Amino acid sequence: MNQGIRNFNFQNPTKILFGKDRIKDIDAEIPKDAKVLVMYGGGSVKRNGAFDRTIKALGEREWDEFGGIEANPTYETLMKAVEKIQQEGFTYLMAIGGGSVIDGTKFVSLAAVFDGDPIDIMGGGVGRQLPVSKAMPFGTVLTLPATASEMNNGFVITFVEKKAKIAYGNPLCFPQFSVLEPELTYTLPKRQLVNGVIDAFVHTMECYLTYPINAKIQDRYAEGILQTLIEIAPTVIDEHNHDYPARANFMWAATNALNGFITPGVPQDWASHMLGHEMTLVHGIDHGRTLSIILPAMMRVRKQQKWDKLIQYGRRVWNLTGADEDIVEGAIEKTEAFFQSLGAPTCFADVELGEECIDELLAGLERHGKVNISERGDFDLVVARRVYETAL
Amino acid sequence: MNQGIRNFNFQNPTKILFGKDRIKDIDAEIPKDAKVLVMYGGGSVKRNGAFDRTIKALGEREWDEFGGIEANPTYETLMKAVEKIQQEGFTYLMAIGGGSVIDGTKFVSLAAVFDGDPIDIMGGGVGRQLPVSKAMPFGTVLTLPATASEMNNGFVITFVEKKAKIAYGNPLCFPQFSVLEPELTYTLPKRQLVNGVIDAFVHTMECYLTYPINAKIQDRYAEGILQTLIEIAPTVIDEHNHDYPARANFMWAATNALNGFITPGVPQDWASHMLGHEMTLVHGIDHGRTLSIILPAMMRVRKQQKWDKLIQYGRRVWNLTGADEDIVEGAIEKTEAFFQSLGAPTCFADVELGEECIDELLAGLERHGKVNISERGDFDLVVARRVYETAL
Repeated sequence: MNQGIRNFNFQNPTKILFGKDRIKDIDAEIPKDAKVLVMYGGGSVKRNGAFDRTIKALGEREWDEFGGIEANPTYETLMKAVEKIQQEGFTYLMAIGGGSVIDGTKFVSLAAVFDGDPIDIMGGGVGRQLPVSKAMPFGTVLTLPATASEMNNGFVITFVEKKAKIAYGNPLCFPQFSVLEPELTYTLPKRQLVNGVIDAFVHTMECYLTYPINAKIQDRYAEGILQTLIEIAPTVIDEHNHDYPARANFMWAATNALNGFITPGVPQDWASHMLGHEMTLVHGIDHGRTLSIILPAMMRVRKQQKWDKLIQYGRRVWNLTGADEDIVEGAIEKTEAFFQSLGAPTCFADVELGEECIDELLAGLERHGKVNISERGDFDLVVARRVYETAL
Repeated sequence: MNQGIRNFNFQNPTKILFGKDRIKDIDAEIPKDAKVLVMYGGGSVKRNGAFDRTIKALGEREWDEFGGIEANPTYETLMKAVEKIQQEGFTYLMAIGGGSVIDGTKFVSLAAVFDGDPIDIMGGGVGRQLPVSKAMPFGTVLTLPATASEMNNGFVITFVEKKAKIAYGNPLCFPQFSVLEPELTYTLPKRQLVNGVIDAFVHTMECYLTYPINAKIQDRYAEGILQTLIEIAPTVIDEHNHDYPARANFMWAATNALNGFITPGVPQDWASHMLGHEMTLVHGIDHGRTLSIILPAMMRVRKQQKWDKLIQYGRRVWNLTGADEDIVEGAIEKTEAFFQSLGAPTCFADVELGEECIDELLAGLERHGKVNISERGDFDLVVARRVYETAL
């Protein structure tokens, strides 16, 4: 397993505009003759000024808005945006929001110009996916650091009718640019700040906690993101503490957790995300909160498979010393305690779920083809059941 | 100074093709109707197979070659390539080599399509620089990990007639793609491997050893690159030890040391490079060897200005403990000892230069406008003299 960095391709063309008062600079990034559809979720972007400042930056460009993109954006909602775009001839999409709005915008950017039925882009959630060859250009204004959707080409869409939450990626789906203003996090409630910290932490862990292949830069980068999140979390989750350096580190850490910088040529897991998606789908648990519940259990159940990396993680991220066994146990306990220190749930009981829900979650995993996942391809429904049970 | 990450723009569109047997994949990256000029330095790329494999990958495309780009590529040599391109109508450049060949190709990519006299692109080395608006597309096959030119938009050109070695950067100068095959380092002699390790190390230090602004991700990434280089150096500089994981880590570390991942929104120095360039220009010292001579002296002379970051560097990179003063001194000594362990020179005497050469070096710095450099803008010729003298 120590054969070195695997062959990889890396490319991330997204332009980042980071810092204070950057929304005004999108004027230079969008064609002057663009007809822009501004995409957002609830009304928070109107209350915090992000919407108005974006409209102002659009200047003389023709624009309209499409709001109401929900957390865990649905195919059904997004297709209304597709219809509007096709009827009214928009040429550019401008997402303002967190991962859900940006993810939804990515799907719309493909669906609005797809030659065929857009349900087939992601296989309708359960079927064969048809190839796509073009996408509308889009930019983003990020309001919630968490998913890194602002600087990657992936997205997750929920198909309500099919009861499926499906991840998808395509090189056409990098934002052309993303505005990262740390001050936009000042109006976030604690729960969303906590969810963001956990999402970024677990993204990093999914890319890191596998088995060592001697990819030193990738490992150090991942450890640096984890250390950063641990250091800044107490300050960041205090919603009333508008500490700019901490919020800036939070925003850049969350972007770096899933923009591809830590993953070139290394194995990845993503089993925790898959198990979490089913909990969101069936029980509406926040994505971040599913991860703080699943990851510690995943670490316990997959301890042997992740042994070497757990030791490295315990030593470098948590500064643990001693016997290997103690470091491994300590690393798991430290991780769980970190989530608890944020006020996040770390077991089913914390979100008032019990053993009776596991069969349905497993049935969903099976229906969505989420078997044989994880870095070793040895993660089946038997293992999934053990993880859910360990998380009770 | 602790105000947090500064406003920044980040974009790096270069596509990386990393790993074993990747040259063949350039066929998919270059337009089928391109007329390609293959740029290289000496004959090593013909001996190690990189040239032949590149030509094979070009397939049916029309191509010709331009060899003889020297280490520290000169304006005078590169203008011959410009002339050939303009006379014969090439549409794409393909660089095969290390930083010098890639840097030279970047200049040519601008000069060949410049509306005016190409001497004015970089101000002839000493004058006002005229704006550029277009560049020829180009790709690279990297043979010597060191400069990161394969994944950035900067380059350094020497103007022989003007006795100037000038750095330049332009967003038009990112390679469209770069092939990184760690196995291509197997034919490098020890001296070039050592130079590459030092160049990557000092690039990272120029971006890191300034003053803290609480940019946690950027600092952790930089420290990760430094730690990686320290760990792998003994294996990498053994020219007969074809250890793939070590060479892969070396190649990716060198790219990451100057591809922009560690620099968003942080102060940078570059004074060591400026002082080193004069030594290369006047005395022909290898670029890497000028850096191993200058950096330890720079750390000693600028100790007070870099105090806080020296402590952080000593603790995190060298695991030093104790009183601050001891950590700072230890960090400088460890750095110097690291360079010495590679067999690199760390003082003027090691390259048979003495005090008598300092006046000419300082005159060059002044002539090239390299005063008031460094992260605080307080680095003048008086300080430069002290650094050179400390390095004797």
